[in-house]
Amino acid sequence: MRIGLVCSGGDCAGMNPATKKFVEYSLELGYEPYFIREGLEGLIEGKIEPATLKEVSGILHKGGTILQSSRSKRFFDPAFRLQAYQNLQRHSIEALVTLGGDGSFRAMEVLAKEHSLLYAGIPATIDNDIRASDYALGVDSALNVILESTDRLRDTAESFRRAFVVEVMGRDCGYLALASAIACGAEVCIIPEMGYSLQSLGARLKEELGTGKRRYVLAIVSEGAKASSEVVSWLKEEVGIETRITILGHVQRGGSPSVYDRLMGFRFMQKALDSLSLGKSGVVVLREGRVEFLSSQEASSAPASLPLDMVRLASRLMF
Amino acid sequence: MRIGLVCSGGDCAGMNPATKKFVEYSLELGYEPYFIREGLEGLIEGKIEPATLKEVSGILHKGGTILQSSRSKRFFDPAFRLQAYQNLQRHSIEALVTLGGDGSFRAMEVLAKEHSLLYAGIPATIDNDIRASDYALGVDSALNVILESTDRLRDTAESFRRAFVVEVMGRDCGYLALASAIACGAEVCIIPEMGYSLQSLGARLKEELGTGKRRYVLAIVSEGAKASSEVVSWLKEEVGIETRITILGHVQRGGSPSVYDRLMGFRFMQKALDSLSLGKSGVVVLREGRVEFLSSQEASSAPASLPLDMVRLASRLMF
Amino acid sequence: MRIGLVCSGGDCAGMNPATKKFVEYSLELGYEPYFIREGLEGLIEGKIEPATLKEVSGILHKGGTILQSSRSKRFFDPAFRLQAYQNLQRHSIEALVTLGGDGSFRAMEVLAKEHSLLYAGIPATIDNDIRASDYALGVDSALNVILESTDRLRDTAESFRRAFVVEVMGRDCGYLALASAIACGAEVCIIPEMGYSLQSLGARLKEELGTGKRRYVLAIVSEGAKASSEVVSWLKEEVGIETRITILGHVQRGGSPSVYDRLMGFRFMQKALDSLSLGKSGVVVLREGRVEFLSSQEASSAPASLPLDMVRLASRLMF
Amino acid sequence: MRIGLVCSGGDCAGMNPATKKFVEYSLELGYEPYFIREGLEGLIEGKIEPATLKEVSGILHKGGTILQSSRSKRFFDPAFRLQAYQNLQRHSIEALVTLGGDGSFRAMEVLAKEHSLLYAGIPATIDNDIRASDYALGVDSALNVILESTDRLRDTAESFRRAFVVEVMGRDCGYLALASAIACGAEVCIIPEMGYSLQSLGARLKEELGTGKRRYVLAIVSEGAKASSEVVSWLKEEVGIETRITILGHVQRGGSPSVYDRLMGFRFMQKALDSLSLGKSGVVVLREGRVEFLSSQEASSAPASLPLDMVRLASRLMF
Repeated sequence: MRIGLVCSGGDCAGMNPATKKFVEYSLELGYEPYFIREGLEGLIEGKIEPATLKEVSGILHKGGTILQSSRSKRFFDPAFRLQAYQNLQRHSIEALVTLGGDGSFRAMEVLAKEHSLLYAGIPATIDNDIRASDYALGVDSALNVILESTDRLRDTAESFRRAFVVEVMGRDCGYLALASAIACGAEVCIIPEMGYSLQSLGARLKEELGTGKRRYVLAIVSEGAKASSEVVSWLKEEVGIETRITILGHVQRGGSPSVYDRLMGFRFMQKALDSLSLGKSGVVVLREGRVEFLSSQEASSAPASLPLDMVRLASRLMF
Repeated sequence: MRIGLVCSGGDCAGMNPATKKFVEYSLELGYEPYFIREGLEGLIEGKIEPATLKEVSGILHKGGTILQSSRSKRFFDPAFRLQAYQNLQRHSIEALVTLGGDGSFRAMEVLAKEHSLLYAGIPATIDNDIRASDYALGVDSALNVILESTDRLRDTAESFRRAFVVEVMGRDCGYLALASAIACGAEVCIIPEMGYSLQSLGARLKEELGTGKRRYVLAIVSEGAKASSEVVSWLKEEVGIETRITILGHVQRGGSPSVYDRLMGFRFMQKALDSLSLGKSGVVVLREGRVEFLSSQEASSAPASLPLDMVRLASRLMF
Repeated sequence: MRIGLVCSGGDCAGMNPATKKFVEYSLELGYEPYFIREGLEGLIEGKIEPATLKEVSGILHKGGTILQSSRSKRFFDPAFRLQAYQNLQRHSIEALVTLGGDGSFRAMEVLAKEHSLLYAGIPATIDNDIRASDYALGVDSALNVILESTDRLRDTAESFRRAFVVEVMGRDCGYLALASAIACGAEVCIIPEMGYSLQSLGARLKEELGTGKRRYVLAIVSEGAKASSEVVSWLKEEVGIETRITILGHVQRGGSPSVYDRLMGFRFMQKALDSLSLGKSGVVVLREGRVEFLSSQEASSAPASLPLDMVRLASRLMF
Repeated sequence: MRIGLVCSGGDCAGMNPATKKFVEYSLELGYEPYFIREGLEGLIEGKIEPATLKEVSGILHKGGTILQSSRSKRFFDPAFRLQAYQNLQRHSIEALVTLGGDGSFRAMEVLAKEHSLLYAGIPATIDNDIRASDYALGVDSALNVILESTDRLRDTAESFRRAFVVEVMGRDCGYLALASAIACGAEVCIIPEMGYSLQSLGARLKEELGTGKRRYVLAIVSEGAKASSEVVSWLKEEVGIETRITILGHVQRGGSPSVYDRLMGFRFMQKALDSLSLGKSGVVVLREGRVEFLSSQEASSAPASLPLDMVRLASRLMF
């Protein structure tokens, strides 16, 4: 059997370790691994080549993806999906592994159903917004990058009475903001899924700053909450403290994959290939510490939700 | 209820986040938190003080433990344990939380039984050798420190035909060596729990170096295997490649706690305090992704073992 | 003689190593060291205490300043300067060392002249805008923090066709932007001291992106140029590439001092104390690799300028 | 003119930025740049190719050298040097730039004199043992790697009464040990160029540990002093403190080049090419902050010495 690997959507740390395991484990299972470059656009364009051990040597510690990724609007069009399928057929590729998010998995499922392909989706997005999976590749690395920055802000915050607002990524999902706010000990955390009350937060902060119990404020704001400027103004004007903003942007996507992302990349890929070899299509997920394989129907019917214990830990940072 | 916190044995990253949560969550539950300084020796000496929020402010990102730790031979003597108990009585402390390893948990259990105390053990050791728990605080941080070093060795290895032997910690447990060898893509991994064949490894490496397929060799050796010098000589003399050794030592213990160790520190501590509040004594563990509380009997009857999937991933690095 | 140390203006990495050397070397010279806390505001408020070796133990690797800093408008008022002087008199302090920038040095000079004090200024600001000195403490550390971020952006940039705009600090001085743009190999660098032509830059970039010679663009913009939004729009609309912004903010101030900042902190402080012990007032500077002591008149008459070789290296990033 | 670039001896951070500038600035000056791969051995073997901008794109942040290096005994033999020259002649290469140390520079000078070539040596070795130059590429990066480790040791040292011995590189030169001992605030520093008295050091440490003034000891030992085991035994037996060793090894060579090493790589290379274009042969050096070009005679007659102010700062760590 020939199996193709494609990255889709935003890149993240952990894609390269998973890519290395894809080649090694495919060969171990007796399959022929193929690379599809530049995401679904590359699939449409036929950028497909046999994968070699040589190309994946020395990539474990590299951020991003050596396969390159893309977003593809054309893939919504059946004509372009047919073209993509014909490219696969030309190389006799019968199964596909996709590193990406829910959107990419749905796209693959449509393609797979239309043209009788096997496919396996592996969660890989720093947004951690895959419905059925507790974890997506890249999240641990992104969180550690964010923490490095907030730890540095504390140095300067302790030197000078000041507030910092840090905007972190996550699109519509507040997970990155929530986890980093808890892990760095922030005073304020604003995420798109939950409400917040600047009034009650402000009353508490003003009191603490007034009595000298607190010298600085660290606020984490999820980009999806679209509240960074509001929080900056509120800190300056209502709380009355000099305030500076940090927008980390794509710095959060990059950097060498953490140990956790390397090991999860291996485990996810191994499960994906094991499942394809049993003739199954679907999505690899982490649930309660176990790596499992779900049909796409099971995967998409899972409710999207933030971990309750985290929400509980962070509730006093919102109200 | 008054609850004391004590660190025992080797320190590790994650103890400080757990310590912060100890104070905050105790207060939230209506308990009075106390610090016992300098480990079990400090308990015998009566180094006990009320814990304050002020002392745990700004410690989340600090490595090691602000409470300081120690190893105590005297604690094996009932007379000194009595002295320890009397110190606790003097402060009306009825329950203890211990950050440490299996040895420390057993010591606490003996004390608790002798003098009707409640106690909860929290796994905290970079050796990851707690029988019943898949995870101990400090492991993720230690692994990321090791990886940073091996990633740096690759830079210089690619510049010059050379082999590197990296000795990592773990006492009698090969987990750190195993996980870091897999995560950094090492060619050789020697751990105390498993045999190894330098002969078959050597044959493969010589062939790969001879054909130019490989330019360098990275070998991870667990300190418990006591094989570092043997591996160095073998690489120099049998494999025939210039070889240098790196002994990371206690550098692996230090450094700012990773996000994972901060979050696990919070979760472990919360479970420990919740269990004590229900009148239970025992050990907090992570099993298949879930944080659970086991009686000390259950905890100590668990079989010590390395994760099978890791052993499988690494077997070709040993034979 | 009693000597006081005060930090003034923005904090930076390197202040703590200099502070440690202040205490150690003062004692070595037979002087009595004093700390003035919270900057010139603290001087007016009389926050003055004898310095101890104990307080400076273990601070070498800490970012920011343990003395805390502030900006003081009141210090422009002779009445408050008199109050500051009386505070110093109360502790019999005859000489002052200030870690800060040109503005702080001028403030100290006025105070010193009014009340017959000795003073020595030590350049310490990540803006590197001290007229007479090639170097100010904190610059090397800040540059390494910036580079870490731009190196991470490259990972993700290589995975996806994209442009990044990174806004870096420096107030009216483009040094940080200039040096980091050169060191990270940026394609665009905008600083307040120099003009720029988005038109000619755009023509070149469009051609390179069109022919596939280039896959991504990295633009460094100094905050003082107030051009970040303009550059983002230009990249999106004129150059036609998906663009994201990173604003590092005060993250650049923090973090552990680099080796260079620690060693320069020692050298600057040693020169400051040696000069005070000779009865001289003025400013410590680095000029052509030598640490020198200039009278404030000499120091303030130096022309402010960017290093010509750097400007030359970066000119193709501006036009 | 065609100009070749060769790396010789141990690799170090900063070689890649210098290599990138070699290509860019050669082209700017109208010369044709060539790469000689795998050091002087590669020169003998004729591993010579035209250099391209494409190959040096994206290498600024990479440790080691993309050209690979080697040590060559055969180069001492005139017959092999003739062979090397003939390889250069085949490509019409008239000038050579070498990144390496004093030994490599002497080798190049002999070759250059025998066969009328121009050559320029650029100091590049973490040992910092180039006689005429205050700085060699790689030193700043290596020092920052060492500091990261010693800063981590402090975390664990403060948690537990313990001593640490860190062996650092430098061959016969104690510079790395000296600078890192000062920058990390070590208590003991042993280097090959200076004597030391464990007796007087021991008396002081025992007193400080006894009175509780000190909880831990950090000792930096240069590998050239061959004293690591002696210092470990002395700490354990004489000073009476639990002691652990860290041997960083080649980890010190690796890692991303620091900002300073990138900028110095550019400046050194620019001076080398400017000098070759004036028909001069010799060595680029940094002296008192200035980049200069010396004839090989001037360069080799310079006295080897450690910076006096550093020796003075560290003397209390030796006696």
